[in-house]
Amino acid sequence: MIGNQFYSQENHGPYEIYELGDFELEEGGRIPDCKLAYATHGELNEEKNNVILIPTWFSGTSKDYETYIGEGRALDPANYFIIVINQIGNGLSSSPHNSADSIRMSDFPKVRIGDDVRAQHQLITEKFGIKELALVVGGSMGAQQTYEWAVRFPDMVKRAAPIAGTAKNTIHDFLFTQTLMDAITSDPGWNGGNYTSNTEVADGLKRHADIWAVMGFTPEFFKQEKWVLFGVETAEELVQGFLEPFFQMMDPNALLTMAWKWQRGDVSRLTEGNLEKALGSIKAKMYVMPIDTDMFFPPSDCEPEQKLISNSELRVINSIAGHFGLFGGEGEAYHSQIDGHLKDLLAVSVEEGVLE
Amino acid sequence: MIGNQFYSQENHGPYEIYELGDFELEEGGRIPDCKLAYATHGELNEEKNNVILIPTWFSGTSKDYETYIGEGRALDPANYFIIVINQIGNGLSSSPHNSADSIRMSDFPKVRIGDDVRAQHQLITEKFGIKELALVVGGSMGAQQTYEWAVRFPDMVKRAAPIAGTAKNTIHDFLFTQTLMDAITSDPGWNGGNYTSNTEVADGLKRHADIWAVMGFTPEFFKQEKWVLFGVETAEELVQGFLEPFFQMMDPNALLTMAWKWQRGDVSRLTEGNLEKALGSIKAKMYVMPIDTDMFFPPSDCEPEQKLISNSELRVINSIAGHFGLFGGEGEAYHSQIDGHLKDLLAVSVEEGVLE
Repeated sequence: MIGNQFYSQENHGPYEIYELGDFELEEGGRIPDCKLAYATHGELNEEKNNVILIPTWFSGTSKDYETYIGEGRALDPANYFIIVINQIGNGLSSSPHNSADSIRMSDFPKVRIGDDVRAQHQLITEKFGIKELALVVGGSMGAQQTYEWAVRFPDMVKRAAPIAGTAKNTIHDFLFTQTLMDAITSDPGWNGGNYTSNTEVADGLKRHADIWAVMGFTPEFFKQEKWVLFGVETAEELVQGFLEPFFQMMDPNALLTMAWKWQRGDVSRLTEGNLEKALGSIKAKMYVMPIDTDMFFPPSDCEPEQKLISNSELRVINSIAGHFGLFGGEGEAYHSQIDGHLKDLLAVSVEEGVLE
Repeated sequence: MIGNQFYSQENHGPYEIYELGDFELEEGGRIPDCKLAYATHGELNEEKNNVILIPTWFSGTSKDYETYIGEGRALDPANYFIIVINQIGNGLSSSPHNSADSIRMSDFPKVRIGDDVRAQHQLITEKFGIKELALVVGGSMGAQQTYEWAVRFPDMVKRAAPIAGTAKNTIHDFLFTQTLMDAITSDPGWNGGNYTSNTEVADGLKRHADIWAVMGFTPEFFKQEKWVLFGVETAEELVQGFLEPFFQMMDPNALLTMAWKWQRGDVSRLTEGNLEKALGSIKAKMYVMPIDTDMFFPPSDCEPEQKLISNSELRVINSIAGHFGLFGGEGEAYHSQIDGHLKDLLAVSVEEGVLE
């Protein structure tokens, strides 16, 4: 275990840890004493049918969704028990830098989206006795996990809303993610994953951030000088003053673990490669919510998937910030759309299916 | 001078060399014995009013435009004297790897788009006695030079067609280009520009190519498996079999010289930063021709510039290949659009202005 104060309760809490025990992975490895970090909002009702599950995005933690949750909002803790679960490898849950010697750093095993969803399923069933989910919603890699939930546990998931993500990752997106990974691993300080501090990989993390600046935002965002949404006055401040230090605080192996997983998100692994069959098996009422200006999860990649889901609608989110619209920098202009769609979705009556 | 067989007559010829003599640069440096490589098609008529000038794009040479030129086409050598001029730093014209000791490799000076256009002006006036240009047309960095021509020599340029490029480079585009440059300079083999062979920078050139794969094409291109347009059967073949070796053959310092220049393309340098004034001074009939799916020179960045040019039209090119539509992989579907617009443009009568 190496120190990294970024992943502290102070920065990302409050969160709790659930101990899964030894956890077997789809790729053949295992995580001994696997831990999931999670945050909850609101109370679980007696019927245990008021649960909203939110999985985290690449580099994000449960803290990021706090701006999505609140009184009078769609994700209202007064009505729902909201559980935000940190994906494996994100730095809070079991990750290369915080694990036991046998799977530490470069020895950390490959993890799949399916592993996350099985681990989350174990947490909510064992710890809380939850048997149905009123809603699963998440952005980006959170959308990948949302799709996986809907396909893997069709009777359990009543509603689902993947925001800015796909059920099966595209080739273009795979190539993009590879440039992010190569930016890190090409830093000699990365040392095959066996650095002693993330600061040794500062150059690689900087290049990783710089690629994000290009693909995470949009040309229009810069043309309209929308960096003011992030509280800065120039593009340089946005990139050098915010994005670069933001990613430089993170653990390189954590980012690589998540990126590898992101590249391979694919619900059709559950149906021998048949995506139509996988998406056709979904029972949830589903809103597919791409961001209109997203440069790597564009609506044109999301809509064909939505059309394969019987009980679904395409609800496009308008943002000038591209994929980084997810950060909510546009404030009310963004969140009112998310809230509106999620309120509509939560208002839809769903069949009381046979519970697992 | 270091060897690089990529920049040979065999690969990029036939081309000729014009010796400009000592050439002073806008940034304060100079290129002793500056050379421009150029190719011509057709014959200069007696009135010397049938000239079409074409400047080259990033990493490209005069060879690349051969698919744009031909009998019955808009750029028809039977009617026009077509001169394609290789930009400084492209590997054929004066460049870091082929220059004299005093400006060799890391000592090569900074070059601006304005330097290219002044050098090209010297070539066509001194060598051919040309006083007017029926058309200047070019793609990408060729578009940047086209804009520079139209603003710098308004009486000389009768028609102009910038394809997939801008008059003033955007912040987003600057950041994108920086990721390309950092991919190269982060390779220890680059050695501050003083490698002994481009093969020492193979890793950096590979990462540079991989970023191009993401931003040069589009998500839709990959979704529709359009790599077949490039004669390959998989995305892997396109990236690993074509793009990576393509850029790995090139000289890293040449790419960096061009990228630095690309980042700073800006005709408003001629009008103390006033873009409206610069574009308002254009006398040429102009077609602004962005590619609809371009991820870094999008129509939304080109149209506001077009609106500042009095005698202009926006003619959007449709392509599934994004910026790399310029390569013409779509064949007739692409070239028929270019030819159609350029034929329209060449058919426009232009005032016989006062020649310089």
